[in-house]
Amino acid sequence: MLNENLHSDNAAIIWQDHKLLLLDQRILPQEIKYIECSDASAVANAIKNMVVRGAPAIGISAAYALALAARKLGPRGDYKSIINELSASRPTAINLFWAIERVSEEIEQSRQLSNDAFYDHVFDLAQRIHKEDILANQQMGRYGSDFIASKTNKPINVITHCNAGALATGGYGTALGVIRSLHEDRRLNQAYASETRPWLQGARLTAFELMQEQIKTTLVTEGAIGQLMAKEDIHWVIVGADRIAANGDVANKIGTYNLAVLAKHHGVSVMVVAPTSTFDMSLANGQAIPIEHRPISEITDFKNTAIAPNGCHAINPSFDVTPHEFIDAIVCEHGVIAPPNTQSMSQFLKHASDHDKI
Amino acid sequence: MLNENLHSDNAAIIWQDHKLLLLDQRILPQEIKYIECSDASAVANAIKNMVVRGAPAIGISAAYALALAARKLGPRGDYKSIINELSASRPTAINLFWAIERVSEEIEQSRQLSNDAFYDHVFDLAQRIHKEDILANQQMGRYGSDFIASKTNKPINVITHCNAGALATGGYGTALGVIRSLHEDRRLNQAYASETRPWLQGARLTAFELMQEQIKTTLVTEGAIGQLMAKEDIHWVIVGADRIAANGDVANKIGTYNLAVLAKHHGVSVMVVAPTSTFDMSLANGQAIPIEHRPISEITDFKNTAIAPNGCHAINPSFDVTPHEFIDAIVCEHGVIAPPNTQSMSQFLKHASDHDKI
Repeated sequence: MLNENLHSDNAAIIWQDHKLLLLDQRILPQEIKYIECSDASAVANAIKNMVVRGAPAIGISAAYALALAARKLGPRGDYKSIINELSASRPTAINLFWAIERVSEEIEQSRQLSNDAFYDHVFDLAQRIHKEDILANQQMGRYGSDFIASKTNKPINVITHCNAGALATGGYGTALGVIRSLHEDRRLNQAYASETRPWLQGARLTAFELMQEQIKTTLVTEGAIGQLMAKEDIHWVIVGADRIAANGDVANKIGTYNLAVLAKHHGVSVMVVAPTSTFDMSLANGQAIPIEHRPISEITDFKNTAIAPNGCHAINPSFDVTPHEFIDAIVCEHGVIAPPNTQSMSQFLKHASDHDKI
Repeated sequence: MLNENLHSDNAAIIWQDHKLLLLDQRILPQEIKYIECSDASAVANAIKNMVVRGAPAIGISAAYALALAARKLGPRGDYKSIINELSASRPTAINLFWAIERVSEEIEQSRQLSNDAFYDHVFDLAQRIHKEDILANQQMGRYGSDFIASKTNKPINVITHCNAGALATGGYGTALGVIRSLHEDRRLNQAYASETRPWLQGARLTAFELMQEQIKTTLVTEGAIGQLMAKEDIHWVIVGADRIAANGDVANKIGTYNLAVLAKHHGVSVMVVAPTSTFDMSLANGQAIPIEHRPISEITDFKNTAIAPNGCHAINPSFDVTPHEFIDAIVCEHGVIAPPNTQSMSQFLKHASDHDKI
């Protein structure tokens, strides 16, 4: 299974000899190469430059970055500057801020410890965040697959966008975790991977992961999605999320909103799969989610070769916001919110908090 | 003006010394290179391999190809094999078949002529088809711009898809012809060019043409179109067509249907601009339009470098069909059909035929 491979051979995030090894996802699947980060700044750069991507994976990497900083700065160090640097690396994925906050609190509470004990404490938390994420993904896979089975009793066809797989998380994946579970449960006919411009995560990462799992996979350009839904029997769009507002609006990879509008028009259901670390209950709706705009050279160039005229103007928003009305179900590690809205989100979290002490 | 440039320096289609020179559109805008075709087979290959593309430009090229054949085979030659070869080059654009049929009829009616007179006859028709197309584009530009002005009295923002410009036609362009006219009439605020995977005609050709005209142009990935419509004031989607059925259903570059569904959802109007040579009144609706599927290497590779895993399955339909319910206006050289449906299409063509003797 890929998730095991990823934990041994090709894991996106590996901690080894007090260093963080990040699989360079910019050159996958053609090259398997790790970037070695021996300090927190190197991790911040790797996040910014897309060596590691995917909301949960970014959060985990930031947690390990603070462990690297803890080793260097010790219990009486000043962490402000590195926290600012990590926080500035990518603005949309809330998991980044969630992980930084969680580890920062641990740092504050451990300042009386010895150097070694302090480092152990911070590192243990980073590792716990990593392990919890993998477990959460497995739980989401189970909840998502069972929810779909409760609606449909035949093998389904799904479309996924970008990469919300083992590579985007601690392991197993969010959206791809559900697709893996559907496959294991013999509930999946086939998966379509939307190629996802400009980084082509669908082609390079999702098709790669699904093919390793022997899941029947078809790569499709984003332009062909509408016709695919019109002509073929597509049942679910299953995607991850970078931030979910209190009313269930979802920020995710640019192109997700197109998929959701097309899905609504064609009677295709939409599932968003993300751990509660992705929820931002401080935002009433998705309009307030900050959207990262990346360099336009990602659109005008391909592998450093120009594909557009010199001086061409372009826009390159990395994420879009899908209003909750387009989403049939949000799956997190505590269960399924269907349909998501301000009331159902708040009730669900209260219930989960009462029962699971989150 | 670009259309003049294109007729002098960078025209897509140039006839010179009994040869057809085709601007290699696969390597634009970085390289300006012509492929010299001295026989009809070379033209068929150039069409098949995307040296020349765009429904009207393909039709004009096929007409010139038969002129090349006429010079070689003479009035008593057998044209079946070359007609079959040209017809097999690309299946969706009806202009190809329209041009082949029109020139074939001329060949049949000229078989009693001398070699030279026969060649002159066939060549004159090819050149007439070329000139008529340029005139038709200028007429469509006028009709389209005036129709938009009748609905809106402020400068508008438009989105176009693929390339329906001078490069896709005899000159001036269909959709880009309307955009050029809007610009000349000071009715345009700005144009967004959808990059159009997998060939990136929007980035490589449309942005190139519009920038040469000093038209304010922004390149955008297809995935960002929905969010663009949700956030910005977009008024019209303006596209070309490869074949239009009797009820107004439109086959055009893959991705057009996505745009149309998104436009409908956001209250954006949709205009299709195409000469009547694109109309296929023999097909009751768009479901019967043959859709070309091109090699999947166009999706899995980029400039001969793999971007997807080895052995990755993909689908690569080159066109999709947009039902007429999504189209507010079809603009042809005789005027505007708004909204298009079986009745309005048939009445319009009857009226145009009575008045203009088409």
